[in-house]
Amino acid sequence: MTEIKIFCPATIANLNCGFDVMGLCLEGIGDEMIIRKVADKGIRITKITGADLPLETDKNVAGVAALAIFNAAKPDCGFEIEIHKKIKAGSGIGSSSASAAGAVFGINELLGKPFTRHELVDFAMKGEAIASGSEHADNVAPCILGGFTLVRGYNPLDVIKIESPSEIYAVVLHPHIEVKTSDSRAILSPIIALKDAITQWGNLGGLIAGLYSKDYELIGRSLQDVIIEPLRKKLIPNFDEVKNSALNAGALGAGISGAGPSIFALCKGQAIAEKVAFAMSSNYLDTGIPFDMHVSRVNDEGVKKI
Amino acid sequence: MTEIKIFCPATIANLNCGFDVMGLCLEGIGDEMIIRKVADKGIRITKITGADLPLETDKNVAGVAALAIFNAAKPDCGFEIEIHKKIKAGSGIGSSSASAAGAVFGINELLGKPFTRHELVDFAMKGEAIASGSEHADNVAPCILGGFTLVRGYNPLDVIKIESPSEIYAVVLHPHIEVKTSDSRAILSPIIALKDAITQWGNLGGLIAGLYSKDYELIGRSLQDVIIEPLRKKLIPNFDEVKNSALNAGALGAGISGAGPSIFALCKGQAIAEKVAFAMSSNYLDTGIPFDMHVSRVNDEGVKKI
Repeated sequence: MTEIKIFCPATIANLNCGFDVMGLCLEGIGDEMIIRKVADKGIRITKITGADLPLETDKNVAGVAALAIFNAAKPDCGFEIEIHKKIKAGSGIGSSSASAAGAVFGINELLGKPFTRHELVDFAMKGEAIASGSEHADNVAPCILGGFTLVRGYNPLDVIKIESPSEIYAVVLHPHIEVKTSDSRAILSPIIALKDAITQWGNLGGLIAGLYSKDYELIGRSLQDVIIEPLRKKLIPNFDEVKNSALNAGALGAGISGAGPSIFALCKGQAIAEKVAFAMSSNYLDTGIPFDMHVSRVNDEGVKKI
Repeated sequence: MTEIKIFCPATIANLNCGFDVMGLCLEGIGDEMIIRKVADKGIRITKITGADLPLETDKNVAGVAALAIFNAAKPDCGFEIEIHKKIKAGSGIGSSSASAAGAVFGINELLGKPFTRHELVDFAMKGEAIASGSEHADNVAPCILGGFTLVRGYNPLDVIKIESPSEIYAVVLHPHIEVKTSDSRAILSPIIALKDAITQWGNLGGLIAGLYSKDYELIGRSLQDVIIEPLRKKLIPNFDEVKNSALNAGALGAGISGAGPSIFALCKGQAIAEKVAFAMSSNYLDTGIPFDMHVSRVNDEGVKKI
């Protein structure tokens, strides 16, 4: 095999009460990449469609991630990368992570899989770092491993994959507004109340217990973020109204995807997810802000060859 | 059945990274109680051995808990309670909770089980409140449900039982010193850093994932408390040394039981637990402080008839 075509799924990070640690992988939304093994050593980005991104390897998320695995594997060849973006940059559903994950996954496949998927997360983080300014696994972990992922810690990186209960669907509403990463960071308080932290970790514990025991009601009761959402929602027009419309339509829970502006809801079953998507859309039409809607089962497979 | 004899197990609350939410139930350590159905309505405590505790129903943890279930069930009879304490008060392994749990469990059995074990936790909390000053389920939940328990939240009470992986053993070292509850509360900071909270909830997530997936190494990696232990350990002589001796002897992790002064370690298998108990004891002998040691499998059953 000298060429591989890859589907690089979108992801939801900062999953509500699981700020900075929990994410999930989506099914129907993602980029495509083509990676070719070539004789000349090194990494070259030969084509990008769907977005205005740098072709220089060391300035491109996919390029930097590719270099990380390339330098670790030291193969006697090089790779050309084509990126066909479908996930909009700045949407809050892991656009840059999809590119980083796709690059390391594709190269690993072409090299005969010297690394495990867990090991690939580390390489992809290097690429993600040039987009977000720090090495974070929130989006690259669910993109590479699929399902739900918990990043327990970073020293060393410790990522746990949790299989998604089969009926979990995610609905994502992406308002076409820009939320600057610097703003969504600045709005957070570096200091929080212990009692709020306890509420949050009780909920995160409940979410993880609900995922393992496939207890949809427990998952729903646990999707409460008392620390981040109350601050960041101010950056997203109509957040409370859209969230309430999702809950009223039967969503298990809802929240901000990544650092926003996308708003997500989790639902049990496709029928409810479609009802929730309709309710969220109807509500958002009032704002006059253009938006995209996605309804997707949670993708238990992660990045894959197509 | 008009009389029941009950084993009321000791428990570990504030389980490391699970401060205020996670607890577990012990097997070999516990009180005994005898409860009798009598014609005269009301709750009477007729005998207490092993501790100097009030016989007045409304001043006794077991009495208040018993009144809570009695007032809810409104039976056409009354109950007499004998308490034989074996868990030392102030040890940090749920002495008062054992009495509260035993009372509600026993009365529920004699009434033909009108309430589920989950419902009993609510009644037992009423009793626990007169010992601790507030309604907390940290110890009563594992005592009644067995295994590991997560208290997700209180409005309404939401307790999740997690079955213990079969090889988990707990080692408890109880130094015979008094740590005042007021001191162990006052030493905590009501305000914490968000980054520490994230580390903590990543670890709590890892602990719960480890329990469900029976991944002992993940359980061990997750047993890190960066918020409470660094403050409270100052109240426990030789804490760091004992903890290190437990880890060096092969414990998965260790921490403060409840609000102290007991120190616990979790281990995989009885052989390692005994080695760890020996290492902890050897270390504590240096302090000159008298202590008790307990080695116990985690008790998946909880409070029970004997």
